[in-house]
Amino acid sequence: MVEKTNHHMTSDEFREAGRELVDWIADYYDFVENRPVVPDVEPGDIRSRLPAHPPESGESFDAIMRDVDRVIMPGITHWQSPNFFAYFPSNTSFPSILGEMMSAGLGVQGMVWKTSPACTELETHVMDWVVELLGLPSRFLSTGKGGGVIQDTASSAVLCAMLAARERVTKGVSNKTGAPVNLVAYTSTQAHSSVQKAARIAGIGDENIRMIEVDDTFAMNPVALEKAIREDREAGKIPFFVSATVGTTSSMAMDNVFSISKLLDEQIWLHVDAAMAGSAAVCPELRGMHDGLEFADSYCFNPHKWLFTNFDCSCFFVADRNALTNALSILPEYLRTAEHAAGAIDYRDWQVPLGRRFRALKLWFVIRHYGSKGLQSHVRQHIELAKEFETWVSQSKQFELVARRSLNTVCFAHQQGNAATEAVLQAVNATGKLFASHTKLNDRYTIRMVVGGRDTEHRHVLAAWNNFCTTADEVIAP
Amino acid sequence: MVEKTNHHMTSDEFREAGRELVDWIADYYDFVENRPVVPDVEPGDIRSRLPAHPPESGESFDAIMRDVDRVIMPGITHWQSPNFFAYFPSNTSFPSILGEMMSAGLGVQGMVWKTSPACTELETHVMDWVVELLGLPSRFLSTGKGGGVIQDTASSAVLCAMLAARERVTKGVSNKTGAPVNLVAYTSTQAHSSVQKAARIAGIGDENIRMIEVDDTFAMNPVALEKAIREDREAGKIPFFVSATVGTTSSMAMDNVFSISKLLDEQIWLHVDAAMAGSAAVCPELRGMHDGLEFADSYCFNPHKWLFTNFDCSCFFVADRNALTNALSILPEYLRTAEHAAGAIDYRDWQVPLGRRFRALKLWFVIRHYGSKGLQSHVRQHIELAKEFETWVSQSKQFELVARRSLNTVCFAHQQGNAATEAVLQAVNATGKLFASHTKLNDRYTIRMVVGGRDTEHRHVLAAWNNFCTTADEVIAP
Repeated sequence: MVEKTNHHMTSDEFREAGRELVDWIADYYDFVENRPVVPDVEPGDIRSRLPAHPPESGESFDAIMRDVDRVIMPGITHWQSPNFFAYFPSNTSFPSILGEMMSAGLGVQGMVWKTSPACTELETHVMDWVVELLGLPSRFLSTGKGGGVIQDTASSAVLCAMLAARERVTKGVSNKTGAPVNLVAYTSTQAHSSVQKAARIAGIGDENIRMIEVDDTFAMNPVALEKAIREDREAGKIPFFVSATVGTTSSMAMDNVFSISKLLDEQIWLHVDAAMAGSAAVCPELRGMHDGLEFADSYCFNPHKWLFTNFDCSCFFVADRNALTNALSILPEYLRTAEHAAGAIDYRDWQVPLGRRFRALKLWFVIRHYGSKGLQSHVRQHIELAKEFETWVSQSKQFELVARRSLNTVCFAHQQGNAATEAVLQAVNATGKLFASHTKLNDRYTIRMVVGGRDTEHRHVLAAWNNFCTTADEVIAP
Repeated sequence: MVEKTNHHMTSDEFREAGRELVDWIADYYDFVENRPVVPDVEPGDIRSRLPAHPPESGESFDAIMRDVDRVIMPGITHWQSPNFFAYFPSNTSFPSILGEMMSAGLGVQGMVWKTSPACTELETHVMDWVVELLGLPSRFLSTGKGGGVIQDTASSAVLCAMLAARERVTKGVSNKTGAPVNLVAYTSTQAHSSVQKAARIAGIGDENIRMIEVDDTFAMNPVALEKAIREDREAGKIPFFVSATVGTTSSMAMDNVFSISKLLDEQIWLHVDAAMAGSAAVCPELRGMHDGLEFADSYCFNPHKWLFTNFDCSCFFVADRNALTNALSILPEYLRTAEHAAGAIDYRDWQVPLGRRFRALKLWFVIRHYGSKGLQSHVRQHIELAKEFETWVSQSKQFELVARRSLNTVCFAHQQGNAATEAVLQAVNATGKLFASHTKLNDRYTIRMVVGGRDTEHRHVLAAWNNFCTTADEVIAP
């Protein structure tokens, strides 16, 4: 018997399997709203249905697809369901999925300009488009001293911002001798945990990050920030980094970027994290949340949260790209190119990893498919739905608002307190009809209702509200 | 006129566009070998063909595809061409592309177990499969104290390893008070730049990483390592991290992991970076390069380099998963789940970013499509082709080997020296018929020929060799 030497799937086999998969994906979206949003499985259930050993001989694509349907799908939490209201939307769209398909098909590396010029240049160009699309300050344009880059997540973006700040304030010393012990960073108690994670990674440490108190809107208190900076300076510390949040994770609260910026001098890097809220700036009437952004050193928002673009796509902008590359550039011989020497952008110097996918394609596809008007229309619809939900809560005899609605996020709780709220949320999620998640605000167990699914319509939000009400009737003693 | 409120692509439109795109991808692979591997463009050429402003109104998918063909494709470096021999292969395959498509279609988040149980469990399971597939030490199995996680790149993996090491050696202090000033890390002069980048990011600093000299095979000299560690200890420093390389970027040189491991004690974390070479361990006869791996704390290799799996897919294993999560875990209220409390894996604690795509799908598809035998067969074919190329170089009157061939990588140079070698490489690459990249070894300008394309066959390697020879005849004076 002659040993088989070519084990690849042929392009004709791919044509057939690919078409089947396209239909499988379309069917998934057509019917996802009927699926329980959160699967009814325990840890270990999925693994127990998988064979213990990898196969020696290849299997057919049909066999793989059968196991996807049999083993994987029963363990999926359906983020793309119109009944998904948890965490953040992570909404995607068909144009974006097509962009991901093309990126996977081309299989190119965008680590330096030369390794695929179009990958770098489309990204730079689309990031400039995004500045216009969101009405961001011109200092973030690549045509000046700044520029944008697609990172995987806002966590990586804030880390890169902090590294650039660390290197800037130490005048190039921290890369050489390590993170100095006297640097201090600031963010609010409501900021995302990624700021603290960045401080750990960058060798700053938990004890050198101040979690500034918030006001009754859960926004950072600028007076408290000013005091903390002053006290640290008096103690011989070096304040070097502030991360302000436009749209906190828990309640979509808005730090006042303008007020914060007025407290800072050139020693302190101002980063603005608008991971979810930023997408709303496609609507001119919502751009007030960005007031003061023209004084920020860096800015980040995630089209993969609320702009119909597949994860991962986090847009990170800096006002001074040299400050970023000073912190992250190392140039070994095997990556030297004439174009780099001549000033072409090598995005590997703008991020932690070296390699990079062609992620600009999907964002380009999305912006072109929807146009700015299409994006505005859908963001406004989500906000209108959240507004209506807020009205229902405010008129309820069982529930009450825990924070002001902000954009697409409503935070509410049962009037009988934390145990009741938690019991209602768990019972609602157990129905499989919707999925909402929780947080704590001033020690109150709080349900977060975030409206942003691609296919979320009025009827889904109304059904969710009715589910909360009837479930509360059932599980809470009157 | 009624304003349009639904701007989404319908599922039927997606079925049509998706099928077209599947054919477009299949056609791309059918004909990619005819394209110039490196595009003939200058920095700015691609951008200049793109409109300055984002569109207000949406455009058709046909219009987008026309611009892909017109603007983007002329700026692509074709990593999937069988004539691509530069950097590292980054080979992909149709099953992997299908996995990426499905991941994009599902659009789920695997940041914690609950956000999509199958996403976490398939990854844990497939990573255990990979331990078996490569014959890695059982300490990396999730069924014991260890486990594997898919990272984006080996750069991120070595950073996570270094952070775990930093936190372990400081007994939990570095996360609190910042990176101590007296830690020292070690790697070889031939190690990838990502080790140095990790040291910068982690607040260790360039001056606290020792680039240990290499022997005449370009492998780390263990005697020099031992001496450096001893001298640092005598100077009051704390050696805490060694990164050994199995398959260096420049010449695929193999550090002796066993010898290195014998020099270390429990204070020093041993990381092994086998980014490209690791895939070869699917072949039992090639596993000698991993001798001593049973003493390593962590290990990384990239299926996205040489195992037919789309970037990004870097497999990172640790012997003690608690050491990793101790360094990277922060648990805010909004991410608390009962399953986490009960010990389920939350992969956000194994990496820098929070969010994560369902990357295990593509690796699972690849392993199932090829089976271990299929993967072995193709890796062996690539190595045989590199062997033959090595023979041609060694018998040449113009070129000579600069290093021993190792696996699929041949390093060679023109006998007339650096200027001649560089001139030949540039002229060869300018033909568009193939793409090879360069490095420097002992100050010699060196051409790297790496064989690993999915569709690279004998005729492509032979044509490349003939191109080198005839080009040298043309551009070098005899």
